[in-house]
Amino acid sequence: MATKPPSCNFIPLSLTFLLFFHGTICLALQMQNECEIRRINAIEPNERIQAQGGYTEFFDSDNQQLRCAGVEVVRHHIQPKGLFLPSYTNAAILVYVEQGCGIQGLMLPGCPETFEVSQQQGGGFQDRHQKLYNFRQGDIIAIPAGAAHWMYNDGQQELIVVVLLDTTNAANQLDQNYRRFYLAGNPQQRQQQQQQQQSPWGRKGQSQEDSGNIFQGFDVNTIAEAFNVDRETAEMLRCQFDQRGHIIMVERGLQVIRPPMSFQEQQGEPRNGLEETICSMKIRENIDASRADFYNPQAGSCTHLNSLKFPILKFLQLGAQRGVLHRDAIMAPCWMTNAHDIIFVTNGNMRMQIVNNEGQAVFDDQIREGQLVVVPQNFAVVKQAGEQGCKWISFRTNDNAMINTLAGKTSAMRALPVDVISSAYRMSREDAQKLKYNRDEAVLFSPGSMSSRRFSGGGGWPSEP
Amino acid sequence: MATKPPSCNFIPLSLTFLLFFHGTICLALQMQNECEIRRINAIEPNERIQAQGGYTEFFDSDNQQLRCAGVEVVRHHIQPKGLFLPSYTNAAILVYVEQGCGIQGLMLPGCPETFEVSQQQGGGFQDRHQKLYNFRQGDIIAIPAGAAHWMYNDGQQELIVVVLLDTTNAANQLDQNYRRFYLAGNPQQRQQQQQQQQSPWGRKGQSQEDSGNIFQGFDVNTIAEAFNVDRETAEMLRCQFDQRGHIIMVERGLQVIRPPMSFQEQQGEPRNGLEETICSMKIRENIDASRADFYNPQAGSCTHLNSLKFPILKFLQLGAQRGVLHRDAIMAPCWMTNAHDIIFVTNGNMRMQIVNNEGQAVFDDQIREGQLVVVPQNFAVVKQAGEQGCKWISFRTNDNAMINTLAGKTSAMRALPVDVISSAYRMSREDAQKLKYNRDEAVLFSPGSMSSRRFSGGGGWPSEP
Amino acid sequence: MATKPPSCNFIPLSLTFLLFFHGTICLALQMQNECEIRRINAIEPNERIQAQGGYTEFFDSDNQQLRCAGVEVVRHHIQPKGLFLPSYTNAAILVYVEQGCGIQGLMLPGCPETFEVSQQQGGGFQDRHQKLYNFRQGDIIAIPAGAAHWMYNDGQQELIVVVLLDTTNAANQLDQNYRRFYLAGNPQQRQQQQQQQQSPWGRKGQSQEDSGNIFQGFDVNTIAEAFNVDRETAEMLRCQFDQRGHIIMVERGLQVIRPPMSFQEQQGEPRNGLEETICSMKIRENIDASRADFYNPQAGSCTHLNSLKFPILKFLQLGAQRGVLHRDAIMAPCWMTNAHDIIFVTNGNMRMQIVNNEGQAVFDDQIREGQLVVVPQNFAVVKQAGEQGCKWISFRTNDNAMINTLAGKTSAMRALPVDVISSAYRMSREDAQKLKYNRDEAVLFSPGSMSSRRFSGGGGWPSEP
Repeated sequence: MATKPPSCNFIPLSLTFLLFFHGTICLALQMQNECEIRRINAIEPNERIQAQGGYTEFFDSDNQQLRCAGVEVVRHHIQPKGLFLPSYTNAAILVYVEQGCGIQGLMLPGCPETFEVSQQQGGGFQDRHQKLYNFRQGDIIAIPAGAAHWMYNDGQQELIVVVLLDTTNAANQLDQNYRRFYLAGNPQQRQQQQQQQQSPWGRKGQSQEDSGNIFQGFDVNTIAEAFNVDRETAEMLRCQFDQRGHIIMVERGLQVIRPPMSFQEQQGEPRNGLEETICSMKIRENIDASRADFYNPQAGSCTHLNSLKFPILKFLQLGAQRGVLHRDAIMAPCWMTNAHDIIFVTNGNMRMQIVNNEGQAVFDDQIREGQLVVVPQNFAVVKQAGEQGCKWISFRTNDNAMINTLAGKTSAMRALPVDVISSAYRMSREDAQKLKYNRDEAVLFSPGSMSSRRFSGGGGWPSEP
Repeated sequence: MATKPPSCNFIPLSLTFLLFFHGTICLALQMQNECEIRRINAIEPNERIQAQGGYTEFFDSDNQQLRCAGVEVVRHHIQPKGLFLPSYTNAAILVYVEQGCGIQGLMLPGCPETFEVSQQQGGGFQDRHQKLYNFRQGDIIAIPAGAAHWMYNDGQQELIVVVLLDTTNAANQLDQNYRRFYLAGNPQQRQQQQQQQQSPWGRKGQSQEDSGNIFQGFDVNTIAEAFNVDRETAEMLRCQFDQRGHIIMVERGLQVIRPPMSFQEQQGEPRNGLEETICSMKIRENIDASRADFYNPQAGSCTHLNSLKFPILKFLQLGAQRGVLHRDAIMAPCWMTNAHDIIFVTNGNMRMQIVNNEGQAVFDDQIREGQLVVVPQNFAVVKQAGEQGCKWISFRTNDNAMINTLAGKTSAMRALPVDVISSAYRMSREDAQKLKYNRDEAVLFSPGSMSSRRFSGGGGWPSEP
Repeated sequence: MATKPPSCNFIPLSLTFLLFFHGTICLALQMQNECEIRRINAIEPNERIQAQGGYTEFFDSDNQQLRCAGVEVVRHHIQPKGLFLPSYTNAAILVYVEQGCGIQGLMLPGCPETFEVSQQQGGGFQDRHQKLYNFRQGDIIAIPAGAAHWMYNDGQQELIVVVLLDTTNAANQLDQNYRRFYLAGNPQQRQQQQQQQQSPWGRKGQSQEDSGNIFQGFDVNTIAEAFNVDRETAEMLRCQFDQRGHIIMVERGLQVIRPPMSFQEQQGEPRNGLEETICSMKIRENIDASRADFYNPQAGSCTHLNSLKFPILKFLQLGAQRGVLHRDAIMAPCWMTNAHDIIFVTNGNMRMQIVNNEGQAVFDDQIREGQLVVVPQNFAVVKQAGEQGCKWISFRTNDNAMINTLAGKTSAMRALPVDVISSAYRMSREDAQKLKYNRDEAVLFSPGSMSSRRFSGGGGWPSEP
């Protein structure tokens, strides 16, 4: 009746090469307008950039699941005394500290240089700079889009961080390609890119660990005048012959001002109304199992970070969850109403099943340590830990992700009247009651409980008179 | 001067089949980047899915006007004792109850099961479930994206509801395709789709009334373990041989707990600060003519629902209007500054004229009962009822839609100085005054008033000395 | 490992014409999904529409930098006694008054007609209309998307205004094409468009200064009935033979009601809680150098307008800056974290350098009076005034744009510990200190200060013991 918009199916093509094009065009449409995810794979890093003080691994940014979720994931390995050079990106960033500890510097415009050593305290050298943040394994660090930051490994072991880069964030008005702007160094490009750069259209890969720092694009005389330094010093800002890459070694160790680290300080900074500016905002929060929101000694634990707990997430519109499942334990089948879930396994393995709106499993496989899977918004998912148990970090594309469980104490099934269950599934009221009340745990389900905690009229559900 | 971005016009093609491709590509561009609406048609449902307890009609989701507005419209017909199975979608939903009455269940995560029958009250069976909502003709029901819900016809006549599905909603991070996830049953697919599913690219139609419930994608053993039930019960959740479709009959009638329905209860739940959580939020509001915001006995009435009146609309970013025009009466020519307007005629007919930014009528036709038209944001529109008068429901893609009228008491014309009117339209000040003051009604204009209430110096406009 | 989405590089094509298509498709993808800006040019208006009372210049809306920023820029030249006809657009609008003065009318639905002359005051004619706003050189006027407005030059010289049209604004649910809906007149089309209009797909250029006013699309009888006027008057609303275009001359001068203009009134309307509705909201604010936020007699001045100062900008999600640099003075190298910056030079010239994430200058050139450049979000930029100094107006796509400077008192460099600088740039601590502290000005840097204010241990940085 009405004019039909273009569709891949209405074109009567017969020539093979045209069909080929046809496919290309459809594919193009699909890529942009649709995220019709039919198959999800567990992915691992497929690229690496080596630097003097460590390396960065990249998960395939062309992967449909990441592209549809509008995010990128990278993983930095920083050696002791390694310094990740100051940079900023067009993405909102969540960092999970998988191993080790370090110092984070964040350069926020308009915030005072509150860390200072005054002359009286002696010592050869004085300095004054913005606040630094100590972090350690199990921490989540939040970095707003466009905020320059650096990171230093001041520990004894390799520092490993998993980084979510959200380029679909409201803060980003550029396209969805992740861009990192370095303030120093002469970072290498990713290898895949160098080929693509030849494209006459100037088109490149979807993400870019970019070559060159921003001072390389400025005229040296302008830099000299802007900083009021001589040409030689200005030239140094460009780092043009620096071969150290984006992570450098500070051989003698980095000398910065910082308060003595105490456990209190690590627990979290005090907050009051006056201090609640962006300058004093907490950017780090621990997500360890010791702070679990859900805990079941038979099954595992689960810790959430949302904007109520960690207010900066409100700006980033991101959240996180740390999950721990013991051997064979199950995470309640569920769907998330308002967020994608990007899951990275840090230890062990688990079987995940992800189901789409047609009742088809788009993923039913093991996911192991070092692998990543995206659970798209609304898709149903169930997790069951393998023999070694499983630990993971999960990033959510909402600062207050809402989860609906299908089974258990707070599930959608409990919300339903028994008669709706009985009618819908054509089962007896007794079976409907079992379905509704047999699992009394909320989110973390102990394994093999079928035999031990069967329908018995006790516990959390109303018994027959 | 500057480099030109790609355009369909700059490619000098001569071969026919290339032109064909050219067209395809342009079309693709157009579809995605532009909603250059040149012609709008009144549309009717063009697909239907039959089920045991009723059927669902679909308005063509490929239709440009719906696609540009980023919405879908469907219409459910549910027989007495028919149950629309529990499901959730990636769209924010507004339901208008065109005929009949029923019960709505909404399964909200974290909300308590507040409807319960305790043991003392006797009777063979106890249950406890989340709040249910009675609804009846003239109600608007709001359902947040991702919230599971079901609907049951507990009345004597067919229940008919018109449903707006907004997939461009901020809550939806998937693509704009409407997806429904069923928790039960074995719903049929739409017919058009089954062909498209063959596409090697896995591309399907723009909307999907999906086959299969989500439990079909999970392993039966996993379901059994998660619910702590036996394999047979778990198997029942998959409903694999269920032929009843998405609306089933509950032959003996649905037994659920609910308070005695009283008129008070229907008028609206009490609200206070403590109760203002999502769990106690009102999800239903009546939009009948008896609650009119604008009323003119000679012309008709008009009832608005926005987020000030019905706070849940703030979350959905949607609004609604119920309009009634008597024979030949006119709705003031107007444009909406911040919303599209999706108009479905429930009774009678009217002539609508919709004008674009080039002063061209993209629609000038009758729209009858059962037909739908989209008035794009900013487009100017005027409605005049036919011989039988006209009633319609209009859905707006903003929770606080702002309307500018061109004629009448609160119009843009009244805001203009007479001298601007006189200069702009090259008319005398007397004519400008008539133009400004001759129609003293606000929104609903009585017909044939030209003769009766002409420019006379009285009424709402300042007279000459 | 995972399925690859389409990319321009993976298709092994050999035939030339296929390559051609390949290019087209890629181009198409690029246009929509990416704003990979490799080269920026200073642009000037390339189109003009002449009217009786003035003319409008258009900056090339196909230009990648404007398209990527999601904005259009036009410049109206209105002769004394010229009236820009009432119209509304789908874009949020910021107007900068480059020269002259005038009256602005804004027709807001639901706002009262507060400007009135009552009968007692005598005189031949009475009227009553909505509030008018006087404006003059240096003012910024904010107009919400969809709000009808008109403008009149009541001064002695040509009125020139530069207009930013933001179509990516949240308020616009149509596509990104700028559309203007005229309430009067018979405006001409832009010339470039007329060719494109022949496209079988109804596709047109990206922006449209549209022909015809909206009344041309309505049936004359309907207009007559809606306004309750005779057919002749209704016909006049269509202005079909009006050759005057979108800016008309009011030969005898426009007669409107307005209070005596006083300096106080120009300084800004009083505001209190009661008045804070959209109807009494301030829509005009002066951005002259006399209200500078940053001032340095040796370098220049800089005035910002954000939503804290000028609350209506919160609705528009736009901001502005007025910049003045004296000869050879430098604006601190910086990047903006959350906005694009659209810079239009009103006087003199300056050298601008814009650097992307690969450390490449995408722009390194002079920009002169009448030229425009877009600095994309996150891109680094430095400005240095030419021999005549430079003045510009800059529009930002955020109501609270955040700027990070690289050099100077509040810069990212100051936030860094000296040891990070020294390690990153491989320079001595002494050089690092100079880099950090040698420029003690905040944003506006006086020229040639290298010799006069060298590293000396004094001033704002901590000295050696």
